[in-house]
Amino acid sequence: MGAEVEYIRRVYYYETDRMGIVHHSNYIRWMEEARIEFMRENGADYEVVEKKGVLIPVTGVSCTYRRSAFFGDTVRVCVRLMSCTGARAAFSYRMYDADSGELLAEGESGHCFIDSETHRPVNARRRLPEEYATLAALVSEGQEGESDRK
Amino acid sequence: MGAEVEYIRRVYYYETDRMGIVHHSNYIRWMEEARIEFMRENGADYEVVEKKGVLIPVTGVSCTYRRSAFFGDTVRVCVRLMSCTGARAAFSYRMYDADSGELLAEGESGHCFIDSETHRPVNARRRLPEEYATLAALVSEGQEGESDRK
Amino acid sequence: MGAEVEYIRRVYYYETDRMGIVHHSNYIRWMEEARIEFMRENGADYEVVEKKGVLIPVTGVSCTYRRSAFFGDTVRVCVRLMSCTGARAAFSYRMYDADSGELLAEGESGHCFIDSETHRPVNARRRLPEEYATLAALVSEGQEGESDRK
Amino acid sequence: MGAEVEYIRRVYYYETDRMGIVHHSNYIRWMEEARIEFMRENGADYEVVEKKGVLIPVTGVSCTYRRSAFFGDTVRVCVRLMSCTGARAAFSYRMYDADSGELLAEGESGHCFIDSETHRPVNARRRLPEEYATLAALVSEGQEGESDRK
Repeated sequence: MGAEVEYIRRVYYYETDRMGIVHHSNYIRWMEEARIEFMRENGADYEVVEKKGVLIPVTGVSCTYRRSAFFGDTVRVCVRLMSCTGARAAFSYRMYDADSGELLAEGESGHCFIDSETHRPVNARRRLPEEYATLAALVSEGQEGESDRK
Repeated sequence: MGAEVEYIRRVYYYETDRMGIVHHSNYIRWMEEARIEFMRENGADYEVVEKKGVLIPVTGVSCTYRRSAFFGDTVRVCVRLMSCTGARAAFSYRMYDADSGELLAEGESGHCFIDSETHRPVNARRRLPEEYATLAALVSEGQEGESDRK
Repeated sequence: MGAEVEYIRRVYYYETDRMGIVHHSNYIRWMEEARIEFMRENGADYEVVEKKGVLIPVTGVSCTYRRSAFFGDTVRVCVRLMSCTGARAAFSYRMYDADSGELLAEGESGHCFIDSETHRPVNARRRLPEEYATLAALVSEGQEGESDRK
Repeated sequence: MGAEVEYIRRVYYYETDRMGIVHHSNYIRWMEEARIEFMRENGADYEVVEKKGVLIPVTGVSCTYRRSAFFGDTVRVCVRLMSCTGARAAFSYRMYDADSGELLAEGESGHCFIDSETHRPVNARRRLPEEYATLAALVSEGQEGESDRK
């Protein structure tokens, strides 16, 4: 719980490819797992968000790979919320080898808030006031969740 | 088109695992691709089925692996409809190396028909009369799509 | 540890499909995760097996789906070793909703032992004497790991 | 063949998630499929590269999502090589709905060249002279494959 959440899990065999390392696309999936854990631990469950009729799709994603992860490794993903406005949110991720502490990868993801029926943008302040308040209070590094208000 | 449909595609890099071969779970996905192609080519598009409010989930699946598939290979999946009743359907699959003709794997899948809202069983004869007629006429090996009527 | 190992994990968002449920192919992957955990907990790590130059590929797999799993659910996979001979092994799996205790799916997988370089069959009794002894002692339901000796 | 390669394929059912759209991680996989097709069509097969003992892992990836892709859609990926030096290469991707022509997503990927045994950097000019020459001649937008020589 808090502004940085740690999410830990093992590498699965099926996540590796014939290079013998984890396929790069799986880091994008780990980022999603960690982001959902961030929300859950902070009391803004993504399941609840969807039950309230809001989806938070990904508008952009990036990942830089520093070292390879291997089958049998345990990865630790440190996730932070970088910004959260009524319209958009952004997370950052640092992925480590949980045993050696070495940095494996760094990533970011951008998101918007949309209505689950119409897929049109919604204002999270109005549609998800509790989750919005929770998340906005967790924004890291001086960003206050206000940047798209002006 | 017809009682047996051939579906051909290359193996993707991300489908391999650290053994250097295609991960076994991907054959289950190829079966789905081939099954959807079977329906499309025969004029019973799965998209249309879903638009009519019916889902055809998988109730069981099996696959026997004969030879490994590798990155760069092209696979040919031969798919047949083994039975189709108002309540259930079953497909069989033979997967080959498209170049050598060698058998890679054989599989089967079982399905039911459910309502997309309630997820309760529906009778495909009533809810999907056209698709049902199309599919029932394609059943291979003497099974006439009537086995669960009695 | 022991003849039955329980493996528990959450359902990931990316494991769902547009039916709103977990895609059936992912149960096959959960079976692998649980099988690897079975080996790890019982001191026959799959990583170690591979380091000894042996692979244990899947020769067959089956799964019967009883109930759907959803995003946010936690699944509990109970895995047992059904047979283990010098040439082959078989596991069975029962997958439950960890909260309600409802049975979600039942599966089986068959495996052989091959050399990681040549991909030719090996005798696990000779190539993996420790792991073989460990596993053979864990075989459930009266099968003693001897069935292909005669 | 040429500086821009078009890669076309259908969306698979299992690529969708419970939002009803293609899961964002799959675009990263489509980029890989398109990149491999780019190399194949231009006579620098990735299989051959690996046979020569070189791997081209991903060092970074990014994707911006403009519109959702759905089951049943056909996507067209336009891939270009943005730079190729002895040490590194970068591709860019534009993904379209093949029917409507609408832009779905834009992405980039960065790569390095490493030895398949040691995983240490190699110089593609020396280890893959033919493939290097082929690729360097295809670099788009005035970049000549020389940027890391100085």
